[in-house]
Amino acid sequence: MSNPSDQNRFVFDAEFSVDFAHRLIFTDDLLADGDSTIESLFGDSSASADSGVLAAIDSEVARLHPNLGERLTGRFSSPELPELREVTLVPGGEAAKNDPDVVEHLLSLIDTLRIDRKSTILCIGGGAVLDAVGYAAGIAHRGVRLIRVPTTVLSQLDAAVGVKNGVNKFGKKNFCGTFAVPDAVVCDESMLATLSDRDWRGGFSEAVKIACLKDESFFDGIESSAARIRDRDMDAARPVIRHCADLHLRHIAEGGDPFECREARPLDFGHWSAHRLESLTDFTVTHGEAVSIGVALDTHYSHLVGRIDRDTSIRVVRTLDALGLPTSHPALGSDALLDGLEEFREHLGGRLTITLLEGIGRGIDVHVVDRDLVAEAATTLPNLLSG
Amino acid sequence: MSNPSDQNRFVFDAEFSVDFAHRLIFTDDLLADGDSTIESLFGDSSASADSGVLAAIDSEVARLHPNLGERLTGRFSSPELPELREVTLVPGGEAAKNDPDVVEHLLSLIDTLRIDRKSTILCIGGGAVLDAVGYAAGIAHRGVRLIRVPTTVLSQLDAAVGVKNGVNKFGKKNFCGTFAVPDAVVCDESMLATLSDRDWRGGFSEAVKIACLKDESFFDGIESSAARIRDRDMDAARPVIRHCADLHLRHIAEGGDPFECREARPLDFGHWSAHRLESLTDFTVTHGEAVSIGVALDTHYSHLVGRIDRDTSIRVVRTLDALGLPTSHPALGSDALLDGLEEFREHLGGRLTITLLEGIGRGIDVHVVDRDLVAEAATTLPNLLSG
Repeated sequence: MSNPSDQNRFVFDAEFSVDFAHRLIFTDDLLADGDSTIESLFGDSSASADSGVLAAIDSEVARLHPNLGERLTGRFSSPELPELREVTLVPGGEAAKNDPDVVEHLLSLIDTLRIDRKSTILCIGGGAVLDAVGYAAGIAHRGVRLIRVPTTVLSQLDAAVGVKNGVNKFGKKNFCGTFAVPDAVVCDESMLATLSDRDWRGGFSEAVKIACLKDESFFDGIESSAARIRDRDMDAARPVIRHCADLHLRHIAEGGDPFECREARPLDFGHWSAHRLESLTDFTVTHGEAVSIGVALDTHYSHLVGRIDRDTSIRVVRTLDALGLPTSHPALGSDALLDGLEEFREHLGGRLTITLLEGIGRGIDVHVVDRDLVAEAATTLPNLLSG
Repeated sequence: MSNPSDQNRFVFDAEFSVDFAHRLIFTDDLLADGDSTIESLFGDSSASADSGVLAAIDSEVARLHPNLGERLTGRFSSPELPELREVTLVPGGEAAKNDPDVVEHLLSLIDTLRIDRKSTILCIGGGAVLDAVGYAAGIAHRGVRLIRVPTTVLSQLDAAVGVKNGVNKFGKKNFCGTFAVPDAVVCDESMLATLSDRDWRGGFSEAVKIACLKDESFFDGIESSAARIRDRDMDAARPVIRHCADLHLRHIAEGGDPFECREARPLDFGHWSAHRLESLTDFTVTHGEAVSIGVALDTHYSHLVGRIDRDTSIRVVRTLDALGLPTSHPALGSDALLDGLEEFREHLGGRLTITLLEGIGRGIDVHVVDRDLVAEAATTLPNLLSG
């Protein structure tokens, strides 16, 4: 450098990498006598006798499984397991992420119960509760160990597998959050039996989404068993849930960008409108339903911009429909919905990047969105299957 | 597994690593005409035109450099640089970490100024302000780009180089925080000229600490130039600040545990009592002074448990003294101070691990602390140099 003020300038550069391990477990009933999952998670713990467990349970799950707290306490009474210091309830659904008192209360429990970085927070619940509890675990002591037990289809095949957490703020989804790899994710099949039909079906929109993006034969399988899945045939649903979770896990581990430093978020197909639709409808449309509508919209838009043919678009929308999922909504195409594009860009940062389809199993990132064609997609979507 | 309830159990394991780059820059005057640092940091930005800059300045730094905001605005008026959207002041010192409104205000600015993940928060200040602003940057949108400009000796050679942030809660230091690698750390020498003598000297306790742990010849250098450093001879101080920061950076990059997943924190020599002393004295003892006292205490304790000889212990304490740093305090040895051992254990998690000296340049982790000998070290420390 020729400038005199640069003469004293000195630069040290360092590069390093951090290794993470991510474990995803499927089991029939985590708390059943003889299920070895809890021993496998805590038995080889390097924690000292000072480390304990705080269990946080989704209030809706606790209502449907009234003896859950008691079963947990019994399960942890073994001297080989760390001390279960408290079982606390967390409001179910988006309330967990909207109410700052939820995180505040969890932090105060972490403080008073002396939950340290080698202690474990065991969270049993739906995606929103896992997100809020995960956030508290992520920021306390710069990260307490977290085991997630997702209890919905949606969280078992999608949210709980991810390496992030978040709470809503300023009316924006996941405005605050961190990237944090859970110690383990344990999908307990017994929890799915008590889901409402609406929540059962809602989860499969994420399976259709990831199949559309990455795996054509997986899509074929969902398409052919959609009616059985809708009717809660576990033998049809189980392989879909597991394969979807595995695809998600592989995307994180092998996709090269687990902490989303690049501009695209390839798994967010259909999500720009889904996020917006949820907040525009005050969360009366669930996340799973909103994703179904968002996937239908962006699939149909992919056709209108010439990337896929009309039959392919119809196949995707028909599969969502056959799963009992909604594929359009009156709020689609409103200016307020289209403003979701900017909110989505802002949350990801950098230039706008959304994912479209080039075929089933083939997602592609684009940076330009034609608002008129989005509006046309929204207008024509309700009649696509009857047209 | 023989148990029938395990028959349907299935485990997916995934391992992955995340790469990080860490850049440490020393320069005379970051905002001087012709200094190329800002261009080097923003010139190759992959950010879109939508990305901007939020500058957060330590109120104490702003008081000592009244034209800093104006210089920043002028510097960023270049069309090649992203838009500087606002310059906000953050209360200097520990107040930044104790007052939750500081983080809340920063988050609301990030929201209203539409600072996205590819935008940058440029923070100019001492270690506490860098910690609080870094925390806001770490949790907003799961992590906004952060450039730290440390303005004190202490933050230039230690805190700012680290990959963590934090705020205090429940009366506990850094109860909330995240691990987050800054985009760059820029040490601006011109900022050091306005430090009080007390703050100037305080920083060098961390240099003595890391020299004691890792680098005997570095210790020799500090020892021989202690009086010149105390008297603010920049030619004596500059190499100490730079070498100390470089040692710290190498420890993070090459130490194998940048996010502190193991039980020990090898750089926390002298810190269990230092953290406690700060809160016991309501932060009237500064962090740098507390570290000096803590290093003196644990060095003398290392002698009392037979790990180093008396002369070595005296050399370390004398060097701290020659730098103009305090080496004892009336609160040392009180039960309230010793309770800091448990708080320190809890923050790190797992069993208690503190670092002692086996010689100058050689730290060693231990898990047992003899409270009586700590009390004896505290009692005899004030007379060590005169004895």
